[in-house]
Amino acid sequence: VGIVTLLTDFGTEDTYVGQMKGVMLSHDSSLRLVDLTHDVPPQAILTAALHLRAAWEYFPAGTTHLVVVDPGVGSVRRAIAARYHSHVFVGPDNGVLDGALAGAVPDELVVLDPELIGAAAISRTFHGRDLFAPAAALIANGAPLTDVGSIADPEPIVRIDVPVPLHENCGIRGAVLMIDRYGNAMTNISADLVAQPVQHIASGSFSVGQLSGSYSDVERGEPVALISSMNTLELAVRDGSAMTRYHLEPGAEVSVSFTQTNDPAS
Amino acid sequence: VGIVTLLTDFGTEDTYVGQMKGVMLSHDSSLRLVDLTHDVPPQAILTAALHLRAAWEYFPAGTTHLVVVDPGVGSVRRAIAARYHSHVFVGPDNGVLDGALAGAVPDELVVLDPELIGAAAISRTFHGRDLFAPAAALIANGAPLTDVGSIADPEPIVRIDVPVPLHENCGIRGAVLMIDRYGNAMTNISADLVAQPVQHIASGSFSVGQLSGSYSDVERGEPVALISSMNTLELAVRDGSAMTRYHLEPGAEVSVSFTQTNDPAS
Amino acid sequence: VGIVTLLTDFGTEDTYVGQMKGVMLSHDSSLRLVDLTHDVPPQAILTAALHLRAAWEYFPAGTTHLVVVDPGVGSVRRAIAARYHSHVFVGPDNGVLDGALAGAVPDELVVLDPELIGAAAISRTFHGRDLFAPAAALIANGAPLTDVGSIADPEPIVRIDVPVPLHENCGIRGAVLMIDRYGNAMTNISADLVAQPVQHIASGSFSVGQLSGSYSDVERGEPVALISSMNTLELAVRDGSAMTRYHLEPGAEVSVSFTQTNDPAS
Repeated sequence: VGIVTLLTDFGTEDTYVGQMKGVMLSHDSSLRLVDLTHDVPPQAILTAALHLRAAWEYFPAGTTHLVVVDPGVGSVRRAIAARYHSHVFVGPDNGVLDGALAGAVPDELVVLDPELIGAAAISRTFHGRDLFAPAAALIANGAPLTDVGSIADPEPIVRIDVPVPLHENCGIRGAVLMIDRYGNAMTNISADLVAQPVQHIASGSFSVGQLSGSYSDVERGEPVALISSMNTLELAVRDGSAMTRYHLEPGAEVSVSFTQTNDPAS
Repeated sequence: VGIVTLLTDFGTEDTYVGQMKGVMLSHDSSLRLVDLTHDVPPQAILTAALHLRAAWEYFPAGTTHLVVVDPGVGSVRRAIAARYHSHVFVGPDNGVLDGALAGAVPDELVVLDPELIGAAAISRTFHGRDLFAPAAALIANGAPLTDVGSIADPEPIVRIDVPVPLHENCGIRGAVLMIDRYGNAMTNISADLVAQPVQHIASGSFSVGQLSGSYSDVERGEPVALISSMNTLELAVRDGSAMTRYHLEPGAEVSVSFTQTNDPAS
Repeated sequence: VGIVTLLTDFGTEDTYVGQMKGVMLSHDSSLRLVDLTHDVPPQAILTAALHLRAAWEYFPAGTTHLVVVDPGVGSVRRAIAARYHSHVFVGPDNGVLDGALAGAVPDELVVLDPELIGAAAISRTFHGRDLFAPAAALIANGAPLTDVGSIADPEPIVRIDVPVPLHENCGIRGAVLMIDRYGNAMTNISADLVAQPVQHIASGSFSVGQLSGSYSDVERGEPVALISSMNTLELAVRDGSAMTRYHLEPGAEVSVSFTQTNDPAS
């Protein structure tokens, strides 16, 4: 059974997502269609990339991931399909796939060809429905990538800047990447970077003296820093919102300092 | 495989939609259930009709479309199922199906019969779950319409007023029908009505001198008029919201004037 | 075909729900996954319980219901799976299952065992994905409960306080449990409690003199009390919001008085 995940900035008030699903089911009514989210802020490519990065590996090998956050629709940006580790990613070549793959080079890349897809007369405003959805359906139905596009060099897909953490004197300086529904702040600091004893973790007025194991290690309403389900440093408030309490937002600087090893010579 | 689309004003905070899906899967656990949207404003029949009109044709022939926006539940309004172009529409006879079909006359119409459906003891507040959902499940499972209701004359279903564009001296006067998630204004002016050279398109303070091919034909933040994915005139702002910027809302008047052909006699 | 319903407080802006679905489809790609709602207010156990209570019986026997509202994730609260009336409920043992079952004792109960589930290395922040989702997938795929956990006494699952209505002198005193999307107030007063002639129904400034059969029994904008689709007393405004108009909210007291039978002796 072919599985297609969908991730867009279309929202759920309109029927844009429904139209894409109709097109896919018209190609293959047995496809399994799974929504990741459609509430990406309009045209927020980085947010979409981070969401897809967080989710795609949990799906079975062979899954096709359709991502449509496409401010350049109708312009010259390429429409691509990329295979990576037995998953296929379909979407505009605007950085969203690069971000989803964390900069990894795809194993195979094609530039979508409307004629191969049977979508010669496509709208200029909704390639999600007229180009990407039929391409994803064909791929999920088993078509090789070369059935939907022309092979291109996997290397030069459009890159996206994701803030990277910096090593500092006895510490790490990173940033908040996303705030989740609970007001938890997800940072760009991976778990392995904070594997040594922590002295202090701060972002603005958020400040804790240690890395905790779970929310329940602190009292209700208290700040807590822990390793998130994405295996990165997360700043939270137990049973509350770190975003609201400490005014955390994407881009906010996060600093981690480590316990100094006592050096007898100093 | 039977496909049922769902379009309601139930929202997604409650489990009303889930209850309808449970009922349908209890009839036939192999049904494919696809949400169009459940965020229609409460009891907004016209909005629901326009959403369904925009989406239904993208689904495969044989699809059943279940629409429940039903301010008259429990009153005498009829509950109907209508076949049109190999699709079946199930819902209250309150104008929503007339609007979805753009006034076309159904090929076949039945008035739902609770006894035929095995729903003799139905609630008076939730026909979506107790009457429409089982009817849709039976139809999607292959039952003829006569298995769920009594044949009625397809002609007199309840009509709904959808504003129609008017031809004016060298132009068209239409209206905004819907605003989408991006703040784009969808009008009632179909693409064929603006197929001649345009001089001016305006709605309130929104004003452009031409019809563009895609959003990227203008600079970011600039107004743009183009043909929407619904094949109608759309008023937008590139990478922005026309609704917010120009205070566009459903019902706002839209005027299009065409380039005057120079008449040597004048 | 195995059916799994999902009910969480994860919202739909993030991909937490998508990650759980990916995990389940990785176990069994033929599973049918049905969202009940993900918009339960963060960590609102009672609301989640009432939503699940309202919906689960509409699904076919054999359905697995996955509920993850889990403020105690990572603490010592138990993770359980309970069978009741041929349905299985999987979630944290924090009262949500007790509330969903309205206090009924499960027919069979197991405490989930990460090793049996093949989830020995689980995150401490997202048991929904790492523990509950694979358990639900295995059960929906046909595994007996003893394949995912150790049998426990069904009796002492964590209880939750749901307000109960009280009989008063010639009447009932109850409470609003939930407000739905329309602003209708759902009470804890079951239909059988108001089966005798009603004299007066009130909550704050909401006041009506009778129990109506449907919304359309009153004029638009008028208050109406009727039996809800959950077979409980509901306070509503026809084509309007009782919540907004009368400031009703969960916890608000609701009083019902019955018509006094004329006693000739008095």
